Amino acid sequence: MSDDLSPKPWPLLDSWSGPDLRICKVRYDQRENPRNGQQLDCVILESADWVNVVALTPDKEIVTVKQFRFGTGKMTLEIPGGLVDPGEAHRAAAIRELREETGYTSNKWTYLGYVEPNPAIRNNYCHQWLAEDVQLTDELSLDAGEDLVVQTCSMKELRTAIKNGEMRHSLVLLALSQVLDIWR
Amino acid sequence: MSDDLSPKPWPLLDSWSGPDLRICKVRYDQRENPRNGQQLDCVILESADWVNVVALTPDKEIVTVKQFRFGTGKMTLEIPGGLVDPGEAHRAAAIRELREETGYTSNKWTYLGYVEPNPAIRNNYCHQWLAEDVQLTDELSLDAGEDLVVQTCSMKELRTAIKNGEMRHSLVLLALSQVLDIWR
Repeated sequence: MSDDLSPKPWPLLDSWSGPDLRICKVRYDQRENPRNGQQLDCVILESADWVNVVALTPDKEIVTVKQFRFGTGKMTLEIPGGLVDPGEAHRAAAIRELREETGYTSNKWTYLGYVEPNPAIRNNYCHQWLAEDVQLTDELSLDAGEDLVVQTCSMKELRTAIKNGEMRHSLVLLALSQVLDIWR
Repeated sequence: MSDDLSPKPWPLLDSWSGPDLRICKVRYDQRENPRNGQQLDCVILESADWVNVVALTPDKEIVTVKQFRFGTGKMTLEIPGGLVDPGEAHRAAAIRELREETGYTSNKWTYLGYVEPNPAIRNNYCHQWLAEDVQLTDELSLDAGEDLVVQTCSMKELRTAIKNGEMRHSLVLLALSQVLDIWR
């Protein structure tokens, strides 16, 4: 790979706001394709960053949450995570989401880096954290719009759940793949 | 893990259409939280399924595409992929996207399964395909709204690109993690 083969950036000609969808704000950017000079109105979904937490008990069990998801209209098996609040550091959001959604807390946090959920249409990042030696210390503290069941599972149970299609959330699988050998 | 710990599904009370954003259509579902009876208006972004292709040359080099992405406003390194066209099978979409975006074709295709890009807010799936022994046989056939540079890279170069943050697209990393040992 060589750097001189980089494509050119697309000059920004104009930008305006679209509807506020509550889960994200729509923005339109008008850009020019450097290859052919053609103008394109790009749709961008703006939102806060997300966090996901790979939480492991002292016995190396994985903390999971089972919940009904509105997008697919199906039950999903995931790891704890959520939105970073305004002004909140993503580390604090990870600690908060783990505690609120599962009641588990940890003294051993490691940052796994951030990924782009979808750089084509979204402007946000998903920060990934590892929490080790987690302990069940708190009560659940669910939002009015949440209902979920917390369970811990062994590596074998996790692999079976993935194989059976119970866990398909791309960001959840990606965070897990960075810590555990989930595919092989 | 035991099945009797499953949360309940959320009864659907009403559903209506929101704005058409071209890259997705907005739908509102009114649902009832089974935990507290509270009603919630859920925002769902509807779109066609996506495909991603892990394409390997006979020398086990990985076919990548470099392009400017409008969501993050940055250059990204990705694998070929795109939208499944109306009425198109996702296998055909994978074959088409690989050919159009990179000029490579293959006689050896393996389905890697589908993931949910975001089951909380999206209704679509991302189908993942592996193409082995790919050959450069065709000219690029880019849409007016595309400009990209194709490069093959070794496993070592791929790991370096990931480590340096040049490749952060979650769905791209996830598809690669199912075929190659990208993290360790």
